[in-house]
Amino acid sequence: MIVPIFFLFSLLFSSSHGAIQDFCVADYSAPQGPAGYSCKNPAKVTVDNFVYSGLGITGNTTNLIKAAVTTAFDNQFPGVNGLGISLARPDLAPGGVIPFHTHPGASEIIIVIEGSLCAAFVSSDNKVYLKSLKKGDTMIFPSGLLHFQLNAGKNNALFFVAFNSPNPGLQLVDYALFGNDLATELVAAASFLDPAEIKRLKAVLGGSG
Amino acid sequence: MIVPIFFLFSLLFSSSHGAIQDFCVADYSAPQGPAGYSCKNPAKVTVDNFVYSGLGITGNTTNLIKAAVTTAFDNQFPGVNGLGISLARPDLAPGGVIPFHTHPGASEIIIVIEGSLCAAFVSSDNKVYLKSLKKGDTMIFPSGLLHFQLNAGKNNALFFVAFNSPNPGLQLVDYALFGNDLATELVAAASFLDPAEIKRLKAVLGGSG
Amino acid sequence: MIVPIFFLFSLLFSSSHGAIQDFCVADYSAPQGPAGYSCKNPAKVTVDNFVYSGLGITGNTTNLIKAAVTTAFDNQFPGVNGLGISLARPDLAPGGVIPFHTHPGASEIIIVIEGSLCAAFVSSDNKVYLKSLKKGDTMIFPSGLLHFQLNAGKNNALFFVAFNSPNPGLQLVDYALFGNDLATELVAAASFLDPAEIKRLKAVLGGSG
Amino acid sequence: MIVPIFFLFSLLFSSSHGAIQDFCVADYSAPQGPAGYSCKNPAKVTVDNFVYSGLGITGNTTNLIKAAVTTAFDNQFPGVNGLGISLARPDLAPGGVIPFHTHPGASEIIIVIEGSLCAAFVSSDNKVYLKSLKKGDTMIFPSGLLHFQLNAGKNNALFFVAFNSPNPGLQLVDYALFGNDLATELVAAASFLDPAEIKRLKAVLGGSG
Amino acid sequence: MIVPIFFLFSLLFSSSHGAIQDFCVADYSAPQGPAGYSCKNPAKVTVDNFVYSGLGITGNTTNLIKAAVTTAFDNQFPGVNGLGISLARPDLAPGGVIPFHTHPGASEIIIVIEGSLCAAFVSSDNKVYLKSLKKGDTMIFPSGLLHFQLNAGKNNALFFVAFNSPNPGLQLVDYALFGNDLATELVAAASFLDPAEIKRLKAVLGGSG
Amino acid sequence: MIVPIFFLFSLLFSSSHGAIQDFCVADYSAPQGPAGYSCKNPAKVTVDNFVYSGLGITGNTTNLIKAAVTTAFDNQFPGVNGLGISLARPDLAPGGVIPFHTHPGASEIIIVIEGSLCAAFVSSDNKVYLKSLKKGDTMIFPSGLLHFQLNAGKNNALFFVAFNSPNPGLQLVDYALFGNDLATELVAAASFLDPAEIKRLKAVLGGSG
Repeated sequence: MIVPIFFLFSLLFSSSHGAIQDFCVADYSAPQGPAGYSCKNPAKVTVDNFVYSGLGITGNTTNLIKAAVTTAFDNQFPGVNGLGISLARPDLAPGGVIPFHTHPGASEIIIVIEGSLCAAFVSSDNKVYLKSLKKGDTMIFPSGLLHFQLNAGKNNALFFVAFNSPNPGLQLVDYALFGNDLATELVAAASFLDPAEIKRLKAVLGGSG
Repeated sequence: MIVPIFFLFSLLFSSSHGAIQDFCVADYSAPQGPAGYSCKNPAKVTVDNFVYSGLGITGNTTNLIKAAVTTAFDNQFPGVNGLGISLARPDLAPGGVIPFHTHPGASEIIIVIEGSLCAAFVSSDNKVYLKSLKKGDTMIFPSGLLHFQLNAGKNNALFFVAFNSPNPGLQLVDYALFGNDLATELVAAASFLDPAEIKRLKAVLGGSG
Repeated sequence: MIVPIFFLFSLLFSSSHGAIQDFCVADYSAPQGPAGYSCKNPAKVTVDNFVYSGLGITGNTTNLIKAAVTTAFDNQFPGVNGLGISLARPDLAPGGVIPFHTHPGASEIIIVIEGSLCAAFVSSDNKVYLKSLKKGDTMIFPSGLLHFQLNAGKNNALFFVAFNSPNPGLQLVDYALFGNDLATELVAAASFLDPAEIKRLKAVLGGSG
Repeated sequence: MIVPIFFLFSLLFSSSHGAIQDFCVADYSAPQGPAGYSCKNPAKVTVDNFVYSGLGITGNTTNLIKAAVTTAFDNQFPGVNGLGISLARPDLAPGGVIPFHTHPGASEIIIVIEGSLCAAFVSSDNKVYLKSLKKGDTMIFPSGLLHFQLNAGKNNALFFVAFNSPNPGLQLVDYALFGNDLATELVAAASFLDPAEIKRLKAVLGGSG
Repeated sequence: MIVPIFFLFSLLFSSSHGAIQDFCVADYSAPQGPAGYSCKNPAKVTVDNFVYSGLGITGNTTNLIKAAVTTAFDNQFPGVNGLGISLARPDLAPGGVIPFHTHPGASEIIIVIEGSLCAAFVSSDNKVYLKSLKKGDTMIFPSGLLHFQLNAGKNNALFFVAFNSPNPGLQLVDYALFGNDLATELVAAASFLDPAEIKRLKAVLGGSG
Repeated sequence: MIVPIFFLFSLLFSSSHGAIQDFCVADYSAPQGPAGYSCKNPAKVTVDNFVYSGLGITGNTTNLIKAAVTTAFDNQFPGVNGLGISLARPDLAPGGVIPFHTHPGASEIIIVIEGSLCAAFVSSDNKVYLKSLKKGDTMIFPSGLLHFQLNAGKNNALFFVAFNSPNPGLQLVDYALFGNDLATELVAAASFLDPAEIKRLKAVLGGSG
C-alpha cells in the first residue's frame, strides 16, 4: 500500500509569513531600493516573468552609429531583478560602432554570433587591449573600464553581452560630454578638447551650451 | 559636583530622519526587496523581535521520512531579517532522514546535540564526503551542494543547523522531481529514471502527471 | 607650441608597489583563495588573456545525453578570474538534454541561438516553471535551483549561458546520486528510489556500491 | 550637413519601466530595507541631493567631552544612500576626546586637518595600536574594533572621517554601559567594574538603575 | 544492453587547470588574503577537513569569569574557510559570564542547550535589549553591537553560537581596556573611568601601564 | 587578594594556526588575489602600517592641468588592504582641473578644505549634476560615473576624497583616448572626434598612432 507523504511538506515548513523567496520578480508599482525593485507577490509570479523575447528581434541600425543595443535589464525583464545578471544584444551594420562607453560597476562578457568585431578596452594605467574577434569568440571587459566594439567587416555583426548586474548601466562618453547642456567652456576645461570641436559634436548629439 | 553630559548624545547625532539602524526587523506588511523584508519602525521594535522559541519544541517525526525540520528563518523570525544568518532544528527518529537536498546560495554548519548521524555531501566533481557524526560533532556543508543527513542509530537524533542567510531556502530533490505536476516523460528525460519509478514516487509524494 | 603633459601621469600616480589592478588574470601556478586564483603579474598580461575561442566550437553530442557543455570558466579562461561572470555553450542534438542540475551559488541566464528548447526550473516550494523557448528567447534561472534544458525539436539546438560567477560549478543530480561509490542503501534511504533502479543507473553512470 | 543623432539614445534604451538607476537618493517617506532607504523618483532628483554643507560648520565643543561629531550619514544626506560611503567631522577642543567606540560593520579612515591627535585602536587579540598624528596624517581603523581619538595638543583639532558604509553606526562604550537603564548589578557582572563606579558614571551619563 | 555514459563527465568538463572548486579548505602553510586562507589542493581534501569534534568537549570554567568559549573558526576548522559561517560553544558555570564584547563584522545567533541565560545587546542609540532565555530559545545579536550573556541560574549553562563569518573575531571590552599596556591616563581619558578602578582591573586582567 | 585572570584569554582562544585576523596589512612580496594583497604576518604588523603621512604634502601643480592627485591606496598604504576604503588628496592651482574621469567600481565622496570647486558628474541617462562647492561642502559621486572637478577660483583649492575601495582605480578619459598607441582612425570611429583633433591631443598627452 502506498501511503502519501506529501503532507510532510507542510510539516517541514510552517512559515507564518509569505511564501519562500528563491527570487524577487520586479514589482514596478512598489518602491525601489538600493538592491533593486520590490518583489512581486510570489503567488502571482508565472514562468512568463522569467522569459523575455525582446532579444530575438534584430535592432534597427539605420542611424548614425549604424548600431543598436537591445537590453534585457531589470527595468524591462522583471525576472532578473535581484539575481545579479542580465543580457543585451548589440546589432552592428558594416561600419557600425558601440562608441567608447563604460558600465558603471558591472563586468561584461561577450560572445560573437555573426560577423566580426574589432573590440578594445583601456585599463586605468592607459594600456589598450585590442583584438579582432570572429564568430564564436568570447571577450571579457573588466568592470568600469572604457571600451568599444566596432564592426570592421562587410557583413552585419551580432553579439550577445552578459553583465554581472541586473542593472549595469551604460555611459557613452560622447553623450556624457556632448549630449547635454554642460557649457562648452566647462567641457573644454575638463577634456582639453577644442571648443569648436565640442560645439560640432554638441550639434550632432543634440546637446546645447 | 557631577555635571550630567547625557545631552552630548543629541549633539553627537542630530539626525533629521528616522532612528539609527543597527538592524532591520522584518515588517511583514510592507514590500519585500531582493535584500529582504522592509524594516519595522525602530521605535516599535522590542527585544521579543530578536528572540524566538520555536526551536525549543521537538518536531513531530511520525511521518514517512521519520523526521521534521523546524526553522527560524526570516519569514518566521523577524529579527534575523537582513542580518545574514538563521537557524533550524531537524529532529530524526531512528531511521529518519533529511533526504537529498540543497540550500540555494547558503552554506550550512551543523552541531549534533543528541544521537548520531550519517551525513554526506557530494561535490560538483561527484565525490562523496561521508561521515558518521556523534554528539558534539560539527560538519560544514558548502553552499549549494547536494547533501543528506540520516539517523542510523537506535535513538532519536537532534541537531542544530546554522545558515549564512536569513532565508537559505531548502530544495528537496524528491519533491522537486516527484512532488508536482511535471509530466512523467519530462522527468524521465531529465533524470534517466524509469517512468514507472517516477510514477511510483509521484504517488507517494503527491505529484501528478 | 605643444608642451607634452604625459609626465603628468607619473605625478598623478606615484605608486610604490606594483601596477594598477583593474583585473586579476588567473595565475594557475600560484595559490588559489576563496575569492579566486592569484593574479598574474600585470606586466605580463596581454589581450589574449581576455579572449577565449573555445566556445566557437560545436560540442560533440554523440553520447547518451546527446548533448555537450563547453565552458569558459576561470579554470579555462584566465581573464574572468575575480570578475564575477562567465559563459558556457551547451549543444544539444535532437532529443538531447542537460539533465536536472544546479549551479551552486550562481544565477544563470540563457539565450537560444539555434533550434528550440523545453526548459524548466523548480522553486524551493516545489512549483515548476516550464517554458518552450525558441530562437532569440531568454530565460533566467534563479541561483541554486534545480533546472533542466531539453531539445524537443527535430534540429540541433544551441544556446549560450551566462553565470554571475567565474566559477559557477555544475552539479548534475544523476551524477551526484549514481555516478560515485555512495552505497545503494544510502542512496535509497536518502532518495526513496528503488534500490534496483539505483543499481541500474549506477551501471549506466559508472558508479559502484 | 549635420544630421542629429540624438534620437539614437531612445533606440539604445527602450526601457518600459522607470529611469536608469545609477544612484538611489533616499526617499525618507517610503519603507526602508536591509540595503537602505527606498529610492526617490529619479525625475525629482537634483544636484542638491548629492551635496551637503553640514560638515562645514564647526561643532560645539562646550560639553564634558570637549568634542562634537557632525555626520553626513544616509539619514541626513540622502545622496549617499546605497552608495557604500559616508563622512563625518569631529571637532575636539584641547583635551577633547571621542571616547572608546566602535562602528559596527564599517572601516574608518581619518585625515587630520587642524591640530594633532592621539589615536589608537585595539585589535581583538588585545594589542594596542597607538599613534600621535599631526596635520596631514591619515590613519585607518579596521572594521568593528574599539578605538578612540584624543586631542592632547593646546589647540583645537579637526579631522575628517570616511566610512565604507552610508550608515556606519557609532557605539560609544560609555553610553552603552552607563547611559541607559541596564541594572548596575548586570553592568557589574558583565564588566567587572565596581558598582560604585558604575553608579557614578550612570549619574554623569544620564543612566539609571 | 547497458552502455556506460560516465565518459560524459569528461566531455562536459574539459578543464585545463585544477579541480572544480566548491570549497576552499584552508591551507595554513600558504599566504592568507583578505578573503581568507589559501585553498588546500582539492585532490588532498578529505571529509575530515569538513568535520570538527572540538565543540563536543565541555569547556573548563574554573576561572574568574566561570566560563569558557570553544571556537570552530577558520583558524581551527579548515573546512569553514571562505564559506561565510562558523560556530562556537560557550560553557558557563552558575554565575559565569561572557562579558561585554563585540564580534567585529559578524552577526551572531544563539540556541540555548542547557540551563538558562540572561542575555542583552545594546543598540547604537543606546537602548538595551535584555531577555531571560531558557533551553531551546534562540536570540539574534546584530553585527558589531556590544552584548553579554550571563548564567543567572543554579546549573551549568550551555549554548551554541553561529556567526555569518568564518573568522568573526571576539573583542572583549575588559581586555581591550584593561588587558594591555595602554597607559592608565589614556584609558581614563577615553573612558571616563576612575584611574584607580582602571589600575585595579589592569591588575586583575594582566595589563600594565 | 587579587587573582589574575589574564590566563583566561588563552582559554577563550586556543587557535592552532596563526593569529586572529582583524585586518590584512598588505604583504607586497606575496601573491595578490581578486580580494587584494596577501596579509603580512600579524606578528610583524606595527601601528605604522596603519598610518600614512603622504597626504600631508601639497602636490606639485606646475603642470598643464595645474593639478596633482596624491593617493593613499592599497599599493602605497598597506593598512587599507582588504578594508574597503581609501583616501586621496587633489591639489588644484587656480584654473587647475581633474579632467573627466571615472573610478571603476568605487563611489567617491569629497570634502572641500581650501578654496572652491566647480564639480559635476553625468548620469548614464546623460543628465549633468553640476555644483559650485565652497570650503566645508561635501559631494558624493556615484560609482563608475564620469565626473570632473575644476578650480574656478583665484586661490589654490584643496579637497580630500574618500573611496569605498582600497583600490578604486582612476581612468582619465583623455589618457584613455589620446595617451596611448590606439590608432587615430579607431579613436575617431569610436568617439566621433575629428582625426586632426585626436592627433593634436595625442601629441599633447604623449600618445602615438
